[in-house]
Amino acid sequence: ELLEAALAVFQPKGLAGVRALVTAGPTFEAIDTVRGITNLSSGKMGFAIARALREAGAQVTLVAGPVGLPTPYGVTRHDVVSAEQMFAAVKERVSGADLFISVAAVADFRPAHRSDHKLKRASGGLTLELTPNPDILGYVARLPRPPLCVAFAAESEHLEEHARAKREAKGVPLLVANLVQEAIGGDENQVVLFDERGRHPLPRGSKLEVARAIVRHIAAAWPDWSRR
Amino acid sequence: ELLEAALAVFQPKGLAGVRALVTAGPTFEAIDTVRGITNLSSGKMGFAIARALREAGAQVTLVAGPVGLPTPYGVTRHDVVSAEQMFAAVKERVSGADLFISVAAVADFRPAHRSDHKLKRASGGLTLELTPNPDILGYVARLPRPPLCVAFAAESEHLEEHARAKREAKGVPLLVANLVQEAIGGDENQVVLFDERGRHPLPRGSKLEVARAIVRHIAAAWPDWSRR
Repeated sequence: ELLEAALAVFQPKGLAGVRALVTAGPTFEAIDTVRGITNLSSGKMGFAIARALREAGAQVTLVAGPVGLPTPYGVTRHDVVSAEQMFAAVKERVSGADLFISVAAVADFRPAHRSDHKLKRASGGLTLELTPNPDILGYVARLPRPPLCVAFAAESEHLEEHARAKREAKGVPLLVANLVQEAIGGDENQVVLFDERGRHPLPRGSKLEVARAIVRHIAAAWPDWSRR
Repeated sequence: ELLEAALAVFQPKGLAGVRALVTAGPTFEAIDTVRGITNLSSGKMGFAIARALREAGAQVTLVAGPVGLPTPYGVTRHDVVSAEQMFAAVKERVSGADLFISVAAVADFRPAHRSDHKLKRASGGLTLELTPNPDILGYVARLPRPPLCVAFAAESEHLEEHARAKREAKGVPLLVANLVQEAIGGDENQVVLFDERGRHPLPRGSKLEVARAIVRHIAAAWPDWSRR
């Protein structure tokens, strides 16, 4: 932690004073008292982004799904389990934010009915009714005075096409796209940034290196973006 | 690890030479390339059982679902993700086993169809068809010459009634029952053992203390059980 703090001193301070809100990790959508739907997100990329933002001088609040990762130095963390809890935590904290980075792999759906006791094994099949979860990024991007929004997209195929479509559909200035195979769970990542100026592939590296490169990109564009 | 090895020397060796197969952790049942159904099992109890068995002199093979826990000293570990993979791993290793302890919280159901690409967000609801997973413990207990089987049961209510019913339905000599609220995810546990002689509550303690008490119970009964 001391080393982390010392190293942070040497990172460029391009986002000094910027208030950033970051989501990270998976969400867990309960089926009953023990079972649930989740995904393979480790939270590492989101935590790396929170750390890189803090290194760049930002005041960082991290809303984290259920992961066991240590909180980056100097970051304020709020733990949640489900997408609805993450939505509530974001709504509560977004009003003061200048920058919102949605890294969490929020479950799109949750079971329509949650059982308060553990469901017993049955011999036949089972049908699970799922209902859509709130679109947290969509909500933030459509606020009357939204923070600058950055979306992450994990795609398993047609990366560029899906990434461009998602950037326009969500109405976000910057979209960070990665291939699921590259990113989920591992310690390295390779991403392509999409913004109004086009496509910016970043070199492959550790998630912290990639996070710092993304934050440098944001810091470079910040004077332009924040002037609007 | 050195300390763990040194402490193990002082544990009673009631299961010297016994070949034990243990399952631990949750299973993860893929819906698509990133999403899946799982449960809140941390794997801690199963790993503690594996460690306690090894301390008692057993040769231990541990089949573990997706958890990040370190392998206990001297234990042979095989990692799996889904219930079907766990079933295959157990089938492959059970023939030489004298003792089978099923601690894993195996998902009862898996999605009937797995998508090879990440499903896209849709605005409407979704129905997930689930199909039953193999009953791993049931298979082992019904082998022509089964190892001695120990089942774990996590119940959210009516602990005794459900535990007795499960012990009889599975046809296992020993069932370890705990309340979900006590056990899942935490570092402590409190269990009640059910065997042919009745009900044996164990004192509350760390998962390792509880695991050692369970192993002492098995070791005490072992001469009788293995004679049959």
